[in-house]
Amino acid sequence: MSVARIAVVGGDGIGTEVTAQARKVIDAVLPGVDYNDYDLGARLYHRTGEVLPQAVQDELAGHDAILLGAIGDPSVPPGVLERGLLLKLRFDFDQYVNLRPSKLWPGTTSPLAGVKPGEIDMVVVREGTEGLYVGAGGVLHKNTPAEIATEESLNTRHGVERVIRDAFARAQRRDRRHVTLVHKTNVLTHAGNLWSRAFAAVASEHPEVTTEYQHIDAASMFMVSNPQRFDVVVTDNLFGDILTDIAAAVTGGIGMAASGSVNPERIYPSTFEPVHGSAPDIAGKGIADPAAAILSAALLLEHLGKLDEARRVTEAVAVEVASRTPGAPLRTAEVGDRVAAAV
Amino acid sequence: MSVARIAVVGGDGIGTEVTAQARKVIDAVLPGVDYNDYDLGARLYHRTGEVLPQAVQDELAGHDAILLGAIGDPSVPPGVLERGLLLKLRFDFDQYVNLRPSKLWPGTTSPLAGVKPGEIDMVVVREGTEGLYVGAGGVLHKNTPAEIATEESLNTRHGVERVIRDAFARAQRRDRRHVTLVHKTNVLTHAGNLWSRAFAAVASEHPEVTTEYQHIDAASMFMVSNPQRFDVVVTDNLFGDILTDIAAAVTGGIGMAASGSVNPERIYPSTFEPVHGSAPDIAGKGIADPAAAILSAALLLEHLGKLDEARRVTEAVAVEVASRTPGAPLRTAEVGDRVAAAV
Ligand SMILES: CC(C)[C@H](C(=O)O)[C@@H](O)C(=O)O
Ligand SMILES: CC(C)[C@H](C(=O)O)[C@@H](O)C(=O)O
Repeated sequence: MSVARIAVVGGDGIGTEVTAQARKVIDAVLPGVDYNDYDLGARLYHRTGEVLPQAVQDELAGHDAILLGAIGDPSVPPGVLERGLLLKLRFDFDQYVNLRPSKLWPGTTSPLAGVKPGEIDMVVVREGTEGLYVGAGGVLHKNTPAEIATEESLNTRHGVERVIRDAFARAQRRDRRHVTLVHKTNVLTHAGNLWSRAFAAVASEHPEVTTEYQHIDAASMFMVSNPQRFDVVVTDNLFGDILTDIAAAVTGGIGMAASGSVNPERIYPSTFEPVHGSAPDIAGKGIADPAAAILSAALLLEHLGKLDEARRVTEAVAVEVASRTPGAPLRTAEVGDRVAAAV
Repeated sequence: MSVARIAVVGGDGIGTEVTAQARKVIDAVLPGVDYNDYDLGARLYHRTGEVLPQAVQDELAGHDAILLGAIGDPSVPPGVLERGLLLKLRFDFDQYVNLRPSKLWPGTTSPLAGVKPGEIDMVVVREGTEGLYVGAGGVLHKNTPAEIATEESLNTRHGVERVIRDAFARAQRRDRRHVTLVHKTNVLTHAGNLWSRAFAAVASEHPEVTTEYQHIDAASMFMVSNPQRFDVVVTDNLFGDILTDIAAAVTGGIGMAASGSVNPERIYPSTFEPVHGSAPDIAGKGIADPAAAILSAALLLEHLGKLDEARRVTEAVAVEVASRTPGAPLRTAEVGDRVAAAV
């Protein structure tokens, strides 16, 4: 019997190169994993017009987790692969916890003056199945002066409360035990009020966790002026998308930004992927940094309950990154080899 | 006859302190302005329950411009003053160009390592009358497990095109002549498509202006990793709210962040205000920095066609700020005096 069944969706551009390294590292730390590769992304779309065939989705559903590289290519119209694949997996597989840790690692440099490795250490718990991402919208009188286009944000008590619960549970396991709710309650008063009430209710069950509220504009500013203040951040789908990219930027860019789209109950498989894109400009050259993909594999292992393995992978990546000579050329496969050897 | 009629809404906290300095500077550079003071904000709300009485709004409509300090106090529930006053003015007075310049001034320090004064110089043209700010939303089954709250973003060709036209007109008058459209076309496909088509149409009429598109998450990251790349940015109401706070953060905080909510046709008065809030913690102490309020007055003068006066105020603020001793205590009135003396 295999220890776990992982579907690998390398995807486009550098995606396949970095997942190959992540897989190498998983094999080193946890032998006996079963992999199935799925060829999805821009190539499949151009060849067949399909994005996620139903049969493939059914097969994916039979796995313990999905390891994803990167999806997207400028040749595909905006939204086709995002809505048809990435978001479809998040929604159909009820991946409501979109997990994005941000840490300033030793060996990496923040663009912020005077901020030192170790000082930034947060995790953004972004809602993954609601908000403006649901695709509720439309267009009327297209291509006339009377045209109107709408986008609707849907927020349920069910969806909001469960992700807030997850955030508090994570805070409980961390040193600082602090949760910041980020929203825009002064403008988005309906959704904001629902988020605030759900947050207050869950907070009252966690007297050991300190809490704070920030508007998204203020939080975006604090991400730059004082990112040290954040521990766990919980927020909606769109705000989380934006905040985590700022968090990645202040921790030295998306080179180390890992993410998981998680179904905590494990009824459906969760997806783990680096935050970076397919980077077509450097694809095929063997120079993409696989660190974020390998850290995503660590999140995957953690999700499967392999806590010790996850920790070893994370530490090995940290050591590898800290040992790099600034400015020296990087080879994708060599990074993978070094981390695999170290775990 | 007066040269201009300006309504002054000092508002809450430090608001009245900083508008007093802005007014002092306007008087120095353009004698003969008529002012009317309006007491709006948290105090009026607590005293009378009113936020913007219709009679006051009618009077405001008779002015050439509104100089606003800051509105807001923790004692008022979120949304009441924002929706009832700030946003009501923007919507009712058709202030569709929300103008937010960001510059790294000599004498100020960016939190970004190695970024020098002069290197960041952008203006964000934020749409002011549409998007998620329209207040279209609601709640169903409140306080039950079945609760759902919605927020709807409305985007019209009319509203989108006119703000894009304004952005291109501004770019045309700047050295770099570059416009970046920021949206999230890969997820908000309906609104994103409308914005993209309107942008392409207006761009085709401006062959001398170079253009670029960025998703909001990528743009937020670039604001940190490479803010120098931005010249004019045009975006929707909510994205503009977030982006301008990041822009303020990387140019040293909101101390210098001015804004105008502009009705370019001057059918209605435009509002000019610092981006900072009412800062109740330092209110009444005479230590608030009035630079952003005075720079907002410069935007006001520019809007009224007083280009030379506007330039002199802006330069005087720049000189005053550059002459400050880092760490030395600041007196609100003295800053105003120095700038007024210099214009
Ligand atoms: C590609 C896109 C749909 C996606 C998102 O907006 O969620 C990406 O930006 C991310 O953060 O995972
Ligand atoms: C106070 C609030 C309604 C306002 C906004 O969101 O527009 C403020 O943040 C701003 O940027 O002017």
